[in-house]
Amino acid sequence: MQAIKKTTRRPGRPIAGPDGQNDIREKILDAAEQMFGSYGWTATSFRDIATDVGINPAMITYYFRTKKNLIETVFKRRATQIADRWLQLLDALESRPKRPPTVYELMYSYLSVEFDMQKSGAAGEAFVKLQARIHNEIDDFCFRLRREVYDVATQRYIAAFERALPEIDPVDINWRIVFVIGGFLYMLAGGARLEDLSGGLCKIDDIDEVTARATSFMVGGMSAASTQYSHPHPKTTQPKAAKVKVATTNGELGRSPKAGKTLARKRTQRNQKG
Amino acid sequence: MQAIKKTTRRPGRPIAGPDGQNDIREKILDAAEQMFGSYGWTATSFRDIATDVGINPAMITYYFRTKKNLIETVFKRRATQIADRWLQLLDALESRPKRPPTVYELMYSYLSVEFDMQKSGAAGEAFVKLQARIHNEIDDFCFRLRREVYDVATQRYIAAFERALPEIDPVDINWRIVFVIGGFLYMLAGGARLEDLSGGLCKIDDIDEVTARATSFMVGGMSAASTQYSHPHPKTTQPKAAKVKVATTNGELGRSPKAGKTLARKRTQRNQKG
Repeated sequence: MQAIKKTTRRPGRPIAGPDGQNDIREKILDAAEQMFGSYGWTATSFRDIATDVGINPAMITYYFRTKKNLIETVFKRRATQIADRWLQLLDALESRPKRPPTVYELMYSYLSVEFDMQKSGAAGEAFVKLQARIHNEIDDFCFRLRREVYDVATQRYIAAFERALPEIDPVDINWRIVFVIGGFLYMLAGGARLEDLSGGLCKIDDIDEVTARATSFMVGGMSAASTQYSHPHPKTTQPKAAKVKVATTNGELGRSPKAGKTLARKRTQRNQKG
Repeated sequence: MQAIKKTTRRPGRPIAGPDGQNDIREKILDAAEQMFGSYGWTATSFRDIATDVGINPAMITYYFRTKKNLIETVFKRRATQIADRWLQLLDALESRPKRPPTVYELMYSYLSVEFDMQKSGAAGEAFVKLQARIHNEIDDFCFRLRREVYDVATQRYIAAFERALPEIDPVDINWRIVFVIGGFLYMLAGGARLEDLSGGLCKIDDIDEVTARATSFMVGGMSAASTQYSHPHPKTTQPKAAKVKVATTNGELGRSPKAGKTLARKRTQRNQKG
């Protein structure tokens, strides 16, 4: 702690004028981004960040009040860039005359936005790590943040995939976008497991390769035939005996294709609104 | 802290005999599993766990010395069950005469082991959450744990997928197993994002459905045509101009299929050893 000096200035209040204030504010955000990304949310204190920036911890309280408010500001600073970029790319693909976007184009554009952020420099790399980290650390709060910033764009991607894959059960499209998110978050968190499992055969130092490898996998997954699955217990209370698993030729479980179509209509109506 | 009493017993040493000791040890492990899964590794202290079990924190130190040792014991207790189950299922599939395992069978068995653990009860559910959580919290340490417990089984699965998909670049198989891991870890961490993004269209309360949905996606991804990608900078130092991206009909990037075959041979040699 610095010695308290006799002054009318409130402790922690920044000394510099408006420009200096913005500088300090940005420096706090940069340091917080790096440290939340590297050590996680719980393990990083205002004091750690203040030490890194070379200021009094009270200065962070002055600017951001709470740790949640700080991480919210850190998160939104770059997440809004990602969401905007998604919408731009989708607009470009969807406004192209006579050639609706392919599944490959949609997937490549969806994934490349995150991987482009990762390769944009140290700050972008810290951000994508933070994003992968906070998901598991502060469920409800992080959840609200992701919903607030990403849902519009992600739901537009879901609708675009549904249009590009009219033969696929839209329920599957929704599930699959979540598997896609899981896959890229895991890679963004580090991906070191890949180098390890492959015995050094695969390297993650080339982010363009990560994007290409992820795209081919995710396109295959997204385009796979609809899951054959029938719910053992739909909305209404039914006896356990209602559990019907229809074995198909490839050993998967049966699900009525009709249900898929009804859902497709519902989804399409919903999507055309947003 | 309890008041120190005059006694020859070391503080924290359990009072009960061997059976009672095992009981307390298991109770500590159960509580730690629940709390690490719910609140994460950093946010959970020996004191929290001790309060939950109703013992003195020194008792946890007596049994487990450090927090890392505690989480290692918690992790291995169920992770070894998962690894053993993977090996059993693979043995069964691979010993079947004249019908080598299909990609679907391999993927379903690989995923179902994790999801079966999730649905085995509160403890299994806590474990899979913990597993998804610690991945992001304590990188290096968790990494060593996963490697130690899971690598033999996962590498056998990789080899089995390579045999089931001889036409696919084995480098892709290695990448793809990591996307699969990312996808199921994300679902095991909660999957609430799915219900959110789909506007309630998809529910994650039926783990059999999660397994079926994940399997169809992952089978599609694993079986997708090899990624067409050529490294801009191979091992040897080459000028930047060596970066060749060959556009193919579907807009992917070109990668020599020859390189894939060489790697396939290398991998096969490696896999036949283990």
